[in-house]
Parts: sequence; C-alpha cells; structure tokens
Amino acid sequence: MIQKLVAGIDIGGTNTTFGLVDEAGKILYKETIFTEHFPIPEDLVAVVVEHINKALIQFENKYELAGVGIGAPNGNYFNGCIVFAPNLKWKGIVPLAKLFEDKLKVKTILTNDANAAAMGEMIFGGAKGMKDFIFITLGTGLGSGIVVNGEMVYGHDGFAGELGHITILFPDGRQCGCGRRGCLETYCSATGIVTTYKEFIRRSFPELVKENENITAKDICEKARDGDFVSLTAFKMTGDLLGRVLANSVAYTSPQAIFLFGGLANAGYLIFEPTRESFEENLLNIYKNKINIFPSQLKENDAAILGAASLIWKEIK
Amino acid sequence: MIQKLVAGIDIGGTNTTFGLVDEAGKILYKETIFTEHFPIPEDLVAVVVEHINKALIQFENKYELAGVGIGAPNGNYFNGCIVFAPNLKWKGIVPLAKLFEDKLKVKTILTNDANAAAMGEMIFGGAKGMKDFIFITLGTGLGSGIVVNGEMVYGHDGFAGELGHITILFPDGRQCGCGRRGCLETYCSATGIVTTYKEFIRRSFPELVKENENITAKDICEKARDGDFVSLTAFKMTGDLLGRVLANSVAYTSPQAIFLFGGLANAGYLIFEPTRESFEENLLNIYKNKINIFPSQLKENDAAILGAASLIWKEIK
Repeated sequence: MIQKLVAGIDIGGTNTTFGLVDEAGKILYKETIFTEHFPIPEDLVAVVVEHINKALIQFENKYELAGVGIGAPNGNYFNGCIVFAPNLKWKGIVPLAKLFEDKLKVKTILTNDANAAAMGEMIFGGAKGMKDFIFITLGTGLGSGIVVNGEMVYGHDGFAGELGHITILFPDGRQCGCGRRGCLETYCSATGIVTTYKEFIRRSFPELVKENENITAKDICEKARDGDFVSLTAFKMTGDLLGRVLANSVAYTSPQAIFLFGGLANAGYLIFEPTRESFEENLLNIYKNKINIFPSQLKENDAAILGAASLIWKEIK
Repeated sequence: MIQKLVAGIDIGGTNTTFGLVDEAGKILYKETIFTEHFPIPEDLVAVVVEHINKALIQFENKYELAGVGIGAPNGNYFNGCIVFAPNLKWKGIVPLAKLFEDKLKVKTILTNDANAAAMGEMIFGGAKGMKDFIFITLGTGLGSGIVVNGEMVYGHDGFAGELGHITILFPDGRQCGCGRRGCLETYCSATGIVTTYKEFIRRSFPELVKENENITAKDICEKARDGDFVSLTAFKMTGDLLGRVLANSVAYTSPQAIFLFGGLANAGYLIFEPTRESFEENLLNIYKNKINIFPSQLKENDAAILGAASLIWKEIK
C-alpha cells in the first residue's frame, strides 16, 4: 500500500527548512536552503518543489504526497499569504500557499511559525490529546499559538495569538520593534533577558558595563548555572513577569496546560521555576493547581518541519 | 404546526427571571421570583417548572418546549452545575441542569451569566453572523464571554472568559473580592468607577469626601453629563484602562468586534469615547482600525432570558 507523506516547510529570515513527515511524525527527508538567495518567492518555491519531487522519486513510489504545510513569519491561515513580513526580503503580500499548490497539486495550508509549532505540539508533541492549551515560543521574540476545543485560534483575520505584543502596563515600558512600548516580548525572550541583565548591571555594577556589552542569553544561562547572582536575578525577573502574564492568559481560554518552547525555554529550571511560582501565585482561585507549565516535547531542530507538516496531518489523520 | 419555544432562566443572587422565547427572540412569557425565598434549589426548580408548564398550557398546545437554557453565577457548562457561587445561598455544587432536565424532559444547558449574555448577543443581538467576538458586561463586576470561530470558549474546565480577573500590573492594585490585587473589575465596573471617583475626590477635594460618601455609578454618570470635571475624569480613567486591556485581549483571539453591555455601558459616549480612543491607540498595528467596540444590541431587561434561551437556540436553529 502506498503510504502518505506530508511536506513541512518552515520559511525563516535566514533559512528555509523543509522535509517529508510520515503519520507518526518521523522525518524521512530533510533539507535546508538559504531564504535570502531567492529574492523572488517563485524561485524558492521552484527549488523546494524540485527537491521534494526528487526525494519522492528516491522513495521509489512507496509514498505519495498528501499535502503541504507551511510555517512562515506573518503567515495568514485564511488566505495562505505572507503579509508584510519585516524579517523577509519579500515585500508586500506573497501568496505562498497558492504557489506551492499550483506546482504540487495537493492541499496546502500556511500559517505563522508559532501557530505551526503549536499544532506540532498537539499532533506530535506533549499536547497530544489535549483540546485546550497555550503554546509559547521564547526565542529572539515571543510567539504564541492558542488551541481552543481542539482547534487553533486564528481569529477573525487570521492573526490571533500574538501574546508577544501584550503590553505590560508599566508607565515606562521598553521600546518594542512594533513601535509601541512595554510589549511582553521586550521582557520575556532571549532579547528581553539580555536587556534585563544589562539594566541590572548598569544600575548596580556600572564598572562591569563594558565587559558585558556583547553578552547573550546563552551566556546569561551559563552564568546562572554557575550561580551568578545577576544572571539568576535576570531569570527570576523574566519568569516572574512571564508567570503573571500567563496567569492572566488563563482567564481568557482556561487551558489545560501551557507549553514553553525555544532558546530561553531550554534554560530549564532557570526559567521554569520562577515562571511556575509566579504563575501559581497570580492565578485566580478557580484555576489554582490545575494547569501545568511544561517544556515543549518537540526536538528543537525538528519542531519547525513537524509543526508545518502537522497543519496537514491534523486534517487528514 | 406546533412551534418550538425555549425556556430561558437567569439565576441571580436576588431574583430568578425566566421566560419562553421563540426562534425570532420574542419573549412570549416572562416571570420573576425571589431566589432567596428558596433555600433549597429543588424547591426553586419545582416552582419554575410549574410556571413554565402552566404557561405552555395557556398557549393551548400551539407550542412545545424544545429545551431549557440557564445562566447562573459560577455556572459550569460541562457539568451543568453551579459551583460554589459566592452570591447565592446555595452552597457547594448544585446540579441545576440535571434538576430541570429530570422534570421537564428536554435538553438543558447551563453556563455562567456572562457567557449566556454573549451567546444572546450572537443569536439575537448585534453579533448575529459574527464568528469571533468578545462580550463584556460592565455591572457591579466585570463579566465576559469569548466567541471563537462561532463557538463559545469554555476552556478545559468550563471557566474560560474571566476577564474581570485579569490583573493589571500596577504595583499597588486595588483589593479584589477574589483575594488578589489589581483585578480589572476593581477598576472597570460600576463599583470600580465609584472607587476611582472617590479616590480623586479624596486626593484633590478632601472637603467633598463626606458629601460623596454614598455616590453611585449612576450619579457619576449624571454629573458627567452635566460636565462635572471629576466625573468626566473618572470615566476617562475607566475607559483608558478598559481600552488598554481590550487592546491586549485582541492579541489573544483577534475578534471582529467587542460588545459592551450592562449598567456602565449604558453611560454611552461617556464610556465608549475614552475606551475606543485608548483601544485604538494601544492596538498592535496589524489590528488597527479593524475592530469595532459596539454597545450591546440586547435590551437590558430581556438580555438575561434571551441569553439563557440562546444556549439552546444555538444548537437547534
């Protein structure tokens, strides 16, 4: 019997990663190309399609392509377009789903990368069998996907789940790339924890400002593991704020669990402990001790492809 | 042909209002009894059932009962129970849906009062045809219902949509009845605007504290209409905060519209103008100028019955 495979494609500012994924979430084929080598989206599509077709031939027709799932920055589920993505060289509106569908003649679904990863968690990760959860990706920024009653929340225009741009009502919020002040991702992200760390150094140890000029979130994580007070405090402050906002998030959709994914989530107990503590402390009584904050069960290197492919597997499984 | 009617029942701390509602949202029969006259829920159920059956007989069998919808404080959709409602004399867990179902032998759905009103807005009010909206009721407290993709969000345990208990991250939030500090409803509600007004008086016009001791939200509304500066400022501060939180709410579910209902919403432009202004100012770019904040289209006196009845009409229409 011919088995079904789904192509999962993740479009990033630097790399485009794609692969072929079976029903169990096994990646049978995987490839990466440079997104910026293709100033015209059609050219990238042509190369990806060529690779996918070649791979399918190498499998000697044991598999057929059942669909294409795409995760992309500013990807809109409803129209299958990438819409004014600031981190891509493609400007304006790019009908990427249609471009793939025309070439590969299979169902194609596109959404933003955080939504795709959230779907990956539900189909292949720790949220298997869950109907209500929130998925947070703590990378350079903060992305999110919200699942309600087993379905991804896209909202009226396809742009639901932008928790990175919840504004914290501090009087002097940090400047965000979106033009506003106080967005959550300026605090709770790899970039955010670096800012928090540097602010602390500037205020309390001005003599150390210079040597910390180029510190990264990874450095702060290593220093915290070694017991460095400033780094531990930066994690504490990040987790404290994240826990409060997640406690508020529960009041919206009352999830069964929350998953944290991405670079900062890999810091493990350093971020999970203060986040969970603050979360539990700030929850409304009726939610207390009911909602777990879990690390994502997706391997970081596979998550993008699995997430994209799961958009289709969700529909045909 | 025998037409269908649905019983809508609203359980409040003081009154229980119920009625019979046809498919078009017309209330053909309506009655109110005192909730607190019935220390045992079974007794209240018996009286309501008796009234409903009598009314149906008076209609000379032109109508049949197609279901019962109930809105109740702390009502849980999943198990049909009222769960530890602080404003009711019935303690613990009351299986109200089952009590009605056993007597009337028709499908019975229970949820909390704000969710029921939100459903009423969708089936009979201004959200007709909308699939994604947020409904806010600004009464003594702040209740809410969130609709995503045409379905009410109940969440994992049936208690989603508690925006009144979003905490505002001010360092010294107001004490809330839930035991925490800084909950939205301590600011944006009839009670909240009174507190805001009194705080302003205490700080700026201490000589007027005594004469304003028993001021109500209604009084503040009237004074604001007459141009009173303190009252206008209280509305401005309330709307400013509500607008900010609603702008954040959009980042969760990306609604098409937001509806405001209840006593404070009846203040009209006094609350809508500052709320809309702050909302638009605080929205993330991708949402700007896309989402309307509307007054509810449900008549205040009918909303509770219509909302409760719409729980059933949603299913059988």
